[in-house]
Amino acid sequence: MIIQFTFEPKPKMQKQLIETFTQHEFLFAKGTAPRPDTEIWVTYGEDVTKETVAALPQLKWISVASAGIEKMPLVYLSDRQIHVTNARGIHKTPMAESIVGHILSLYRSLPAIYQLNEKKEWDKPKGSRELRGETALILGPGAIGAEVARLLTAFGVHIIACNRSGNSVEEAEQTIRLDELTNYLGEANIVLSLLPSTNETRHLLTNEHFEIMKEDVIFMNFGRGDVVAEKHLVAALESSPKRHAVLDVFEVEPLPPTSKLWQLENAIISPHISSHSAFYVERAMEIFSENLSKWESGDTKLRNLVDLKAGY
Amino acid sequence: MIIQFTFEPKPKMQKQLIETFTQHEFLFAKGTAPRPDTEIWVTYGEDVTKETVAALPQLKWISVASAGIEKMPLVYLSDRQIHVTNARGIHKTPMAESIVGHILSLYRSLPAIYQLNEKKEWDKPKGSRELRGETALILGPGAIGAEVARLLTAFGVHIIACNRSGNSVEEAEQTIRLDELTNYLGEANIVLSLLPSTNETRHLLTNEHFEIMKEDVIFMNFGRGDVVAEKHLVAALESSPKRHAVLDVFEVEPLPPTSKLWQLENAIISPHISSHSAFYVERAMEIFSENLSKWESGDTKLRNLVDLKAGY
Repeated sequence: MIIQFTFEPKPKMQKQLIETFTQHEFLFAKGTAPRPDTEIWVTYGEDVTKETVAALPQLKWISVASAGIEKMPLVYLSDRQIHVTNARGIHKTPMAESIVGHILSLYRSLPAIYQLNEKKEWDKPKGSRELRGETALILGPGAIGAEVARLLTAFGVHIIACNRSGNSVEEAEQTIRLDELTNYLGEANIVLSLLPSTNETRHLLTNEHFEIMKEDVIFMNFGRGDVVAEKHLVAALESSPKRHAVLDVFEVEPLPPTSKLWQLENAIISPHISSHSAFYVERAMEIFSENLSKWESGDTKLRNLVDLKAGY
Repeated sequence: MIIQFTFEPKPKMQKQLIETFTQHEFLFAKGTAPRPDTEIWVTYGEDVTKETVAALPQLKWISVASAGIEKMPLVYLSDRQIHVTNARGIHKTPMAESIVGHILSLYRSLPAIYQLNEKKEWDKPKGSRELRGETALILGPGAIGAEVARLLTAFGVHIIACNRSGNSVEEAEQTIRLDELTNYLGEANIVLSLLPSTNETRHLLTNEHFEIMKEDVIFMNFGRGDVVAEKHLVAALESSPKRHAVLDVFEVEPLPPTSKLWQLENAIISPHISSHSAFYVERAMEIFSENLSKWESGDTKLRNLVDLKAGY
């Protein structure tokens, strides 16, 4: 089989794949379209369009080395019965570390400390808070949310998980259904969205939700940018300077220079890097190797198989 | 008995004390010397000198609402058989949150994110690292060190505790003796000092120690500033720009404008605020109330009694 990569893992990883799966032909090329006879395509996903897929009549499986697949032609892929797997789960550790880091940083006045350092000024910033005893509400608690819940619990934070079903999330103190959200939003000091982008989650959060939130809430979006319309987010931040937003994702990325979010002192713009890790490609390749072994043995119950109809 | 405060707790707390301990006379005055007939003195500690204590012939107990007592006339207090209690332990939660926050911030590129925000630039900083799997060496693991160890363990960090005796610290994976330190310093990605200032700890860390440490080590001092001479610290940071120091304490505080530390980009100056918390005075008053109850019942086994000879 022809296995086409449209990114280039380190030579060591390439060699390992070639030596492990000797019966296949591996192609590694960045920035070019896959060879027309490609059967398995390994990609970061941004080059998967209806056109590129249409040019690959023998394509059976796309292995995406990232988590987001919302820009892919899901209906077309489903019609073609192409398997799609992603790398969800490998973001768990770096993202949870980033999320907890941002929370602690704001609670313990780190931005103010860094600013004073730049000015070479000894001054004691006011307003340090304790995280212990606070409440965090996590929307869309998958692998990353569970890890954040586990870590924050160690800090003595009460965790309310929120998902569609209300099925209990083990790491949370309490799990609520999405349709109960407005009853609980007012209790949370921290509201974290990890929701993917689907028809159901698009613009799920509106002014109505932000009005219920505490006036000093930290709203964090580390899922997908379109869970809230930017104008609602801007209004929520303008309504109270005590609020903060920490945003790793945006409706349009890169965030355009004209976005009002850049102007707000209480908005932290993390340029979609919270998942960065030196181990990223290595872990994605582990999942791919595991799946390729399954594929060879005829097992199509691949790890991280995407439900193309549900969109995640 | 005359109980003199030389700081002013909130009116609510003053009222509570007066109503609970009706048999005593409470005096609250900031910035003045205690009344000459004071028997119990409650203070942040900075006004306790040989002269001020000498003016209080009936003084039996000084309750210090902070942890550091190294500037007090310990020998004189010991000769006078005056009891000294401090507020150690109440710093545990806010300090551990600050310490873990600083570590995560550096590992997850938060300073770079904040700088890009100020410039309103979308750019992906390089160099984010994962904390999981790293090793932290904690020097002087008391209540704060144990709490830091517990939290870092939740992040998958290996903890080496280091104390004089080598007596096992429960929250650590491994405990070593101070005289073994140089054998282990090279393994640590993070070296955290929480040592108090005593004759034994003064300038304990020298060039020799920094030479053993990793070239990208994060050295953190949240104990007392004189554990390392500033010139050695500066040399260690100048020797490798990949190293960081996060410093909450300094040989001289406030850190003088002439200090070279201000000039180093890899030195984070936290102006002795890591213990700040809205609950600080409340918790110090809890300890004081508990001790005052004991005192009344003739029990001199006070909580947080300072060993004046050992200096902590």
